[in-house]
This record gives sequence, C-alpha cells and structure tokens, in this order.
Amino acid sequence: MSSTLAVGVAGATGYAGQELLRLAARHPSVTVTAAMGSGSAEGVRRLPALARIWDGDVTPLSLDRLAAETRAVFLTLPDAVAAEVGPDLVARGVRVFDLSGTFRLRDAAERRHWYPATPDMDEPVVYGLTEHCREALPDARLVACPGCYPTAALLALRPLRDAGLLDDGGDVIIDAKSGISGAGKKPTERTHFSECHGSVAAYGVLAHRHGAEIEQELGRPVTFTPHLVPLDRGILETIYVRTRPGASAAQVADTLEQAYADAPFVRLTGDALPEIKHVTHTNLCDIGWKLDAASRRLVLVACLDNLVKGAAGQAIQNLNVAFGLGEATGLS
Amino acid sequence: MSSTLAVGVAGATGYAGQELLRLAARHPSVTVTAAMGSGSAEGVRRLPALARIWDGDVTPLSLDRLAAETRAVFLTLPDAVAAEVGPDLVARGVRVFDLSGTFRLRDAAERRHWYPATPDMDEPVVYGLTEHCREALPDARLVACPGCYPTAALLALRPLRDAGLLDDGGDVIIDAKSGISGAGKKPTERTHFSECHGSVAAYGVLAHRHGAEIEQELGRPVTFTPHLVPLDRGILETIYVRTRPGASAAQVADTLEQAYADAPFVRLTGDALPEIKHVTHTNLCDIGWKLDAASRRLVLVACLDNLVKGAAGQAIQNLNVAFGLGEATGLS
Amino acid sequence: MSSTLAVGVAGATGYAGQELLRLAARHPSVTVTAAMGSGSAEGVRRLPALARIWDGDVTPLSLDRLAAETRAVFLTLPDAVAAEVGPDLVARGVRVFDLSGTFRLRDAAERRHWYPATPDMDEPVVYGLTEHCREALPDARLVACPGCYPTAALLALRPLRDAGLLDDGGDVIIDAKSGISGAGKKPTERTHFSECHGSVAAYGVLAHRHGAEIEQELGRPVTFTPHLVPLDRGILETIYVRTRPGASAAQVADTLEQAYADAPFVRLTGDALPEIKHVTHTNLCDIGWKLDAASRRLVLVACLDNLVKGAAGQAIQNLNVAFGLGEATGLS
Amino acid sequence: MSSTLAVGVAGATGYAGQELLRLAARHPSVTVTAAMGSGSAEGVRRLPALARIWDGDVTPLSLDRLAAETRAVFLTLPDAVAAEVGPDLVARGVRVFDLSGTFRLRDAAERRHWYPATPDMDEPVVYGLTEHCREALPDARLVACPGCYPTAALLALRPLRDAGLLDDGGDVIIDAKSGISGAGKKPTERTHFSECHGSVAAYGVLAHRHGAEIEQELGRPVTFTPHLVPLDRGILETIYVRTRPGASAAQVADTLEQAYADAPFVRLTGDALPEIKHVTHTNLCDIGWKLDAASRRLVLVACLDNLVKGAAGQAIQNLNVAFGLGEATGLS
Repeated sequence: MSSTLAVGVAGATGYAGQELLRLAARHPSVTVTAAMGSGSAEGVRRLPALARIWDGDVTPLSLDRLAAETRAVFLTLPDAVAAEVGPDLVARGVRVFDLSGTFRLRDAAERRHWYPATPDMDEPVVYGLTEHCREALPDARLVACPGCYPTAALLALRPLRDAGLLDDGGDVIIDAKSGISGAGKKPTERTHFSECHGSVAAYGVLAHRHGAEIEQELGRPVTFTPHLVPLDRGILETIYVRTRPGASAAQVADTLEQAYADAPFVRLTGDALPEIKHVTHTNLCDIGWKLDAASRRLVLVACLDNLVKGAAGQAIQNLNVAFGLGEATGLS
Repeated sequence: MSSTLAVGVAGATGYAGQELLRLAARHPSVTVTAAMGSGSAEGVRRLPALARIWDGDVTPLSLDRLAAETRAVFLTLPDAVAAEVGPDLVARGVRVFDLSGTFRLRDAAERRHWYPATPDMDEPVVYGLTEHCREALPDARLVACPGCYPTAALLALRPLRDAGLLDDGGDVIIDAKSGISGAGKKPTERTHFSECHGSVAAYGVLAHRHGAEIEQELGRPVTFTPHLVPLDRGILETIYVRTRPGASAAQVADTLEQAYADAPFVRLTGDALPEIKHVTHTNLCDIGWKLDAASRRLVLVACLDNLVKGAAGQAIQNLNVAFGLGEATGLS
Repeated sequence: MSSTLAVGVAGATGYAGQELLRLAARHPSVTVTAAMGSGSAEGVRRLPALARIWDGDVTPLSLDRLAAETRAVFLTLPDAVAAEVGPDLVARGVRVFDLSGTFRLRDAAERRHWYPATPDMDEPVVYGLTEHCREALPDARLVACPGCYPTAALLALRPLRDAGLLDDGGDVIIDAKSGISGAGKKPTERTHFSECHGSVAAYGVLAHRHGAEIEQELGRPVTFTPHLVPLDRGILETIYVRTRPGASAAQVADTLEQAYADAPFVRLTGDALPEIKHVTHTNLCDIGWKLDAASRRLVLVACLDNLVKGAAGQAIQNLNVAFGLGEATGLS
Repeated sequence: MSSTLAVGVAGATGYAGQELLRLAARHPSVTVTAAMGSGSAEGVRRLPALARIWDGDVTPLSLDRLAAETRAVFLTLPDAVAAEVGPDLVARGVRVFDLSGTFRLRDAAERRHWYPATPDMDEPVVYGLTEHCREALPDARLVACPGCYPTAALLALRPLRDAGLLDDGGDVIIDAKSGISGAGKKPTERTHFSECHGSVAAYGVLAHRHGAEIEQELGRPVTFTPHLVPLDRGILETIYVRTRPGASAAQVADTLEQAYADAPFVRLTGDALPEIKHVTHTNLCDIGWKLDAASRRLVLVACLDNLVKGAAGQAIQNLNVAFGLGEATGLS
C-alpha cells in the first residue's frame, strides 16, 4: 500500500460519496485514508451496505486530518460547505476534486447568483469534464467536476460547436430525463416513492443553474429542462439543434468520432440511439444522433450514469489524469 | 343534495384521506360537507391534484364543525389523534368510521401495548371487515375499519377456519408484499424512491401489530411478515397453512364460494392465482389457492388495493351498509 | 336497459379495448351488446381481470352482428383491419369511433405513406379531439379519435396558434415521455420488463407518423420525439415554442383559460407544472407552462393517461357528444 | 494473454451470458476465446451494449471450436441443449460449468420428471454452490451451478441443518421474491412491462423444480413459492422454520458465522435484515434472521443478484476455485 495514492472523501455518506468509496476501494493505485461526513460534529458511522467492499469508518469532518493524511480529496459536500473547505485544503497543499456546483461558474455575477457562498478566489479552477480538459489536469489544484447534466450535454455538443457545424442563431434545446438519485439522499416529498412511481415531472423550467453552466461552456444560450423519471440511476438528454447550411451527416459523424477516438468512456452509437440501461453502473457516456439534412434539424441523444460518469466516476477519471495513473484505471 | 348524507373526512391530506375524497365525490348518496386536516392549527389548503374531482377546501380540524355539519365522519388521523377524536364525536352523536389502528384490538393488554393512547371505553366497537360484520353495522356508532393486511388475510382464512377445514395445530404463515403508499405520505429514508426502487425489504419481522390484529380475529397465532416491494398501490399475501386430515379441494372451494356468494367485492380465482395489477384502483379483493391434498399443504394468495379495499373503499362500503345505501354504491 | 345506447367494441382484448369495456360498464346510458376480438376466426374468450366489472364474452369479429346489435362501435383494431371494418360498418348505418391511426390523415399522399391500407373514401371523417370538434360530432358517422400524443400536443398548442400568439417562423419541438402500455399488448423485446426498467429510450426520431398528424392539425412543421419511460400508463409532453413579439404571459393564460372554460377534462395548472401521477386513471389532460417574456421562450407541459384521454376515455367522450348524452357522463 | 486461462461462453446473448462476458472481460486471469450463441445455424452477432467492455463477435455454436480453443466453457443454454453439449465437451477434455438446471438433480426419477432431455451419465457432477463444495471443485469436470433460488435458500439453511439446529418435523417454507430478469430474455406476456409494473404474482406454486433441488440438498421437504416482483435484478427469500427445542439465538448466529468466516461473498447481517438493493451488481449473498426463542420460530431472509451470485458470478467463482485462481478474483 505504500506506493498507492492516499485520498480522502469528504461527504462520504451520500449517494455520490458512497459510489466514490465503492470505486476507490477497487482502484489498484489508490488508498482511501480518510472518509468523513459533512460536519465536524457528526459521530463515527459505518456503512453496512459497503461491508466486504469498503469496511472503514466514516469519521467527523476534519481539515487537519485531511491535510495530514491525504494527497487528494474528493468533496461531495453541500455547496456552501464545499465553498469553505475547498480553498482551505488547496492552501494546505491538498489537491481537491470537488463534485458540488460551487466552483463551476467563472462569471462572478452568475456565480454569486447561483452559489452565493462561493468566495472570490485567485486560485485557478479547472472545469473538470475530463475529455475536454485533459491537458489542464496535471497542474490543477482545484478541479470543479461537472455534474451529470452538463457532462452529457457538453460531450455531445462541444465538438460540433468547435467544428462550426451548428447554426449560429438557432435554439439549443436540452430536454433531460433524470433518475431520482440525482435529487440526493435527503427524503423529501419530491423523492417519496409514491410521488415518483408511475409519474414524470419537469422541474426548474427556464431557471436551472445547470443551464447557466452549459451556457458558459458552450458560449451560447440554451433552453434546459430537467425531468424526474421513475428510475434510480442514469440520465438521458435529448438535444435539439440546427446545423449550419451545408453541414452533412458525414461531417457530424466524423467530428464526433475524431473528438472521441481516444476516449475510453465515450461510445458513439450513431443512429442506433442510446438507452440509459446500457450505461448504468459504468463510467460510459453513450451518444447517438439523427440528422434531417433537408431541414437541418439535428437530434442528439446522450446518456450516462449520474453517480458514475456524472459524479464519482468522472472525479476518479480526473484524479487518474491529474496524477498520471492511467485514465481508465479502476473504472472498467 | 338535500337528500344525500352529509359526511366529513378528518385527515384529508394523506393518501387514504385523498382517496376518500375521490370516492366520496362520485358517490351519488353522499356529500362531503367537511374535509379537515389533522390538527386545529393548520391553515386552509387546496388539493390541486383533485381539481375538477373534488374542489373544496381542507380546513383545520374542528370537532364542533364536524358535529354540526356531518352525520358520519371518516378518520384518517394518526393513532393518537384518532384515539381522542373518535369517542368525542361518537358522544356528540356522529357515527365514526376510523381507519387508524386505534380501536381495533379488543384485548386491553394488547391494545395498551400497541396503541398506548387509546382510552378504555364502554362504547362497543365494530371491527369493520365489511363481509364479516354486515349485521353489526346498521347499529354501529364506532367502526374500526381494518387495514390492508388483516383484510386480505381474514377474507382468505376466516371462512376456512369457521368451517373447521384448517389443521388445529399447524402454523399459519402470512407473507405479505406491500406497495410503498402503505408506509404513508411522510417522507422518510424508508420511503425514498432510491431506497425502494429495485429492492425488496422485510420489516417488523415477528413483531408487527397487524399480526396481533389478525390473531385476534382468527383466534390462533400467526407468523406475519410484511415486505415493501417497489410499487405504489396494492398488497399481495401468500398464506401457508395445513388443512385438517380429510379436507378436500372441493370443500375448500365450496366453503369460500358460499362465504362470498353475495359479496360484490370478493373475487375467487381458484387455482388461477391473483395478481395485484387486477385489483388496483378497485374495491376488490381477489383470492386464489392451491392445495396439495396428500401433504395437506394449502397455499392461499389474496390481494387488494391498500388505499381502496384496504382503507378508503372499505370505509365507504361500511358506511353504505351502516346507512342502508346499498353496499356497492359509489364503489364500482 | 331498454333506454340505453347499444354499443360494440371490436378489438376488446387489447389494453385500450379492455379500458373501453371498463368505462362502458359503468356508463349509465350505454350498454355493451357486443365485445369482439380482432378476427373472425378467434375463439370465444373471457376476461378474468374484468370479472364483476364486465362479465361478458369476447366473441369473434362479426360485422353482421355488429350491424344488427349496435348503434355505435368502438374500433381498437390494427390499422389495416380498421381500414376495412370502419367504412363497411358506416355503410350499414353504424356510427364508428375508430381509435387506430387509419383515418386520421386527410392528405392522401401522407395517408398512403403511413397507412397504406386505408381506402380513399368520400365519407367525411371527423378528427375526434373532442374539445376542438364538439360541433361536428352530432352529425359524424366516422370519427377518427386521435391518440395520446396529438391529443396532448394539440390541446396545448391549438388555442395559442389560433390566437396568433406563436412566432410564425420558430421551431415547434415536442418531446414526449410515454408509459409502456402505449406500445401495445404484444410482447416484444422493446416491451420486455427488463429492457424498460431503469431505462429511457427515444424512438421514431424525426420519423413518427404522429408527428405528421400533429402537423396536419397545427398547420406547421413540428419536431416530435417520443421516448419510452419506465411506467405503465400516462404520457407527458414538454413543448418548446417561441411566442410572437409582444405576446404577454397574461395573453397566454387568458387564451388557454377561455379555450377550456367549459371543458370538463382540461385542467390548466399555470406555472405549477403538471405531473403524470395526477391524471392516470382519469380522462383529464393537465396543461401548465412557463414563459420567459424577454427571450419569448415558452415551455408548455401537457400530460394525460394514454389509455383514457388518449384512447378509451376520449372515444366515449366523443360518443357522449355525438349522441347528446352529456359530455362527462360515465367519465368522472 | 498467453498466461491466462482460455474460456468459452455458449449461449452468450441471454442475460446470464452477457453478464458472464462482462465479468470475464475484467477478470485478470481469464481470456474469452469463444463466445457463441445457442445454435449452430445462428449468424455472427455483435453486442453493442458491451462495446468498450467486451468487443468480440458472438459466433454460431461449435463444439469443435470450443474443444480446440478453450480449457473451460460456461453453458448458458436451454436445458435440452445443455443436456447434449455438456457431456460432449467433457468427453473432449473441456471442463464444463453449466448454468442450466439440466445436471442438478441426482435422483434419476426426479431428473427425468423435470429435465427429460438429460442423459443418464457415469460422469460425476459437482453441485456447484461454491461455499459448500470448495473441496470437490479442483477435480470437477462437470459443475452444475445452482440458480438463484437454491443458492440463497441453501446458504441460509444448510449450516443450521448440519448443526442440528432445525426442528426435525416442522415445515420449511421458502417465500421467494424475484426480479423479472430471472424469467429470461424471451418476450412473453409474463415479462411484458405493463403486466409486471405495479404488480406481484406468484407462480409455480406447490410445483416448482427448484423446490425439488432445494429438497435434494437439504434432505427434507420444503414448500417453495416464487413470486415475480417489479424489479429487474435480484431475489429475496423469506424462510420460515422452527428451531429444535433448546436452540438459542447465540447458537444460530455462531453456526452461521463459523460456516462463512472465510467466505468472501456471504455477509451476515444478523437482525438488520438484508435488502436486495445492497447486493445487486455484486456476487454477495446477504443473510439476516430473527428468532423468537419462546415459540422457536426462526425467520431467515437471504438475498442476492440472480445474474451474479445466482448465475454468472457463481460460475466464475467456481471456475476460480476449480483452477486455483483465487476465489474472489475478478468478482470484487
């Protein structure tokens, strides 16, 4: 174990935190030296569901211990707690992989609107969509890992935008269907089984902070509408755009294939559209599409497991690249 | 409307309460003159999901108003609240149909153990399993409507026991599978979608108050194990007993058919075993069975909708019989 | 019974057919005098799940018997069978309410493309979206009842288009989420529980015949994408349009409220967006919306039960209006 | 790759077959050199859902190729096909791990009743419940891997029976709740989403071949009742037995703890009863229990993932022990 990387998880009892422990426990180059709750006053807890998989204690949150015992820490904390913990750990020399939304928005006004607790910092933040930030990771000290919605949308759209294949003026509409684990572990009326089962509901329509994040990375306005659908894990996004005049189906396919030729976790399914079932419990993002060349209407479908590629898996993928451990190690 | 029966619902915002409003709204002989919450300090509320079905206000709990404006009241209140409200309303001349467990146990020691808030009363209580108490209902002032578990178990077992077809000494094992709405509307870790979806869990093993209730009505010990299964409405019970030596398959069938020849809501499916899907959103209880005559092993399967025959529907069925309105009125 | 309307159901064993029997059985002004399968060579069948609800026989398809014993017939048959049966029954003086897609498209070229078996006819067809065709129904002999997708989309969009509130040039994008019963009763890999559970999948992207139907009734192109989500009954559509410059939120609300002021089955929920759970097992269509006036982006959400308002319920609603029985009779 | 074990999968397109490929692909000591369908006339197929996980071709069934290219073969074939293929491969020197029921029953009469295609053989068969057959595996040439139902039941009951803690005469009742993937990949009315969703149904009551298998291994009669519950993967069994007079809770706990002290995949949860959710996508079997010492009623609850510990995972666990690869290799 002496040769493995010592990592910590802060916020280890939520869904993403437990998924991190599960993945880290079987990662051959990593050792979890600290798993902590979300506050310093919490008692020590066990995680019976992880018995024989990861058998440690979850201890109260302690920045001193994290600084002393780890070289990298994953934060799966509430936004306001992450806003305080993240910069403090970076200042102590720990590399931070944050899974909250706290550090994702670069524009100060937007950030203050959606994440009022986030401090203004000089520390540069890497927006950690692994496939689009590999070069920046080795030097990163604070990585803001994007969540499930921006990850799927940007993996599908960014290469097409970068290649100039999208119509400049047209709408970008992202209709997302999400499993309930994305709403977090806290019991609410919204997450009650009887309210979700047999139902579908839109939420945050025309006012969702992940829309702002997608707009930042894409450089243009989007209409983003998430829906809760009655399943546990996984999201699927249906994306409606227009291509620029003259763009061909072959160009769309070639652009995406080039973009992800070396990406171990992006599968392009072409016109065999992807389904959530095929990506759950994996770090994969599947992307398919249909183009009606005459009307230039392009429909893309992207899906992934919100707890893996949309959270814990991508965080580990970032750590792998940041520390040179091999991008797919512990994830396949 | 002048010729209809004025009824009230106390506890109208829970799952059973809303189902009562839904059913009462289309009942041709009943008018809901009061729908109230569970406390006197609650504000007035609307139920948007019932718009165009039942459009009234849910007002704070007021026994004075219930006494003044109704002839009968359905209580879908927490046990301890029902324990106080029920006898009070009866004393004021209102007939009470209680859906809590408060008044179901006759043995004082058992009742104090499971329902410590229940007062000792002189008022006779009718155990309101309609098919087995029709004669007592017209004179009843306080009806303790059984819940889903005892209703299904007793509809299946009581006629066989009364006919002497069950082995005296053998075990009676009731393995129940219940939808999540049976756990109530309050959000808890137990009812979180992500905890229930894709899972099955036993609870209250060897220690469930509904077991005591079934034992009371059956006059013998039972092993009762409820499980939560990932669906919203409906329960199914698989019941394991031995028949007495010499009992034949024909006797079992005849006994059940005679018992329910005139019962509009009990369907006997014989060896085509019933399924929850066929009874949800109805007041039906389906019962099927298989007998291995050589070994005298009898497996009965009974199912019903916990919010209808296991709650609101049976309460209305009781009211119908109690007031001579026609047992099936408003329920088919 | 002599004073009730004698109706028949052809195709009574599928999901929509059984829902029709269920609804017709409790309709006070209707008697089902004939329930038939989809072919003349099928044997007589019972429907055990409908015992005590509707206890008749399902007999082989016979046009002679339908002509002799009914005044109106509901067709829930495969498209090609309905194409033959419908005109024949009309010629014999029976009024036909067809639930297939066969007769819905008016443009001959479109119709031949999507429904090659449909004959060219002189018989006028009423497109049976009840709320939009009430005047035409009393004289209709052949009513093509729209399915779930067009019903929800058109109830939301038609009044806004008629009032000139939509931007002329903008895209109309309809992203639909449908329960699996919409895929029909026939077992396929697509409808296998294990393929649907925990998954979401798009289908028919940029090539769905219901898109053609919506375009016909709306008079402009739409992008329509249906998805299968893991629930049984119900659909929800999220609709993305732009309003014309200057259109206000009040105008949108007023237009919809005026359009459905007298509609017993359309509930407008405003910015409290609707959910499938609140409409299943009812004939209701719930419609909500959000408008961002600055960007003129309007998102509408509409949902209904595909087997009721999207099939059997709307067919009965049409029959009610056609025969003057009271639009909501038997449906509330 | 030269140092890894060459294995084949026959029947690779079903649910268990695909799970085998998924597990074998990440097994460090195994290489899949042949993945075949269930018949020799099938065409070559790809498995898009396994892209980037296992990217080979599924070729037609060929015993010659299996004999030439593998040292061990997993059979996930229909019973009658396995009956023919298994002995043939053994005769050619290939070690066979069969996942069908074909070779599980030792009694010739029972076997002929439930598996008429199975030949009478001299070849000894190891009943491959790994935890109970470790010593026999290194020399085994034909391993009949038990399915999900017997695995869970026997892991819970065998140690207690061996220790003499069960009442000799009492009933053993096993009430099983199974996800739908256990019914296989073939679309049937039984596995249609709309038939399963929101429902629970018993099947094979008092007549299930897995009951016979449990009785064989337990040496006493059992009443076994499987139910389909609306989830995809996982089973949970609730087991009702009586302990012998004088047996204590400590004895029950000690016996189970000793039995599985070195078992990497059995977790004993004591009176914190297990849930399916915690074992899916793992090779674990969780076992909990409650004893009412006064009445000697013991309720055990055991659960596992039917496609892993109940199929593919246990088969690999058996292969690991048989070839000395380390019992847990590739499974954690």
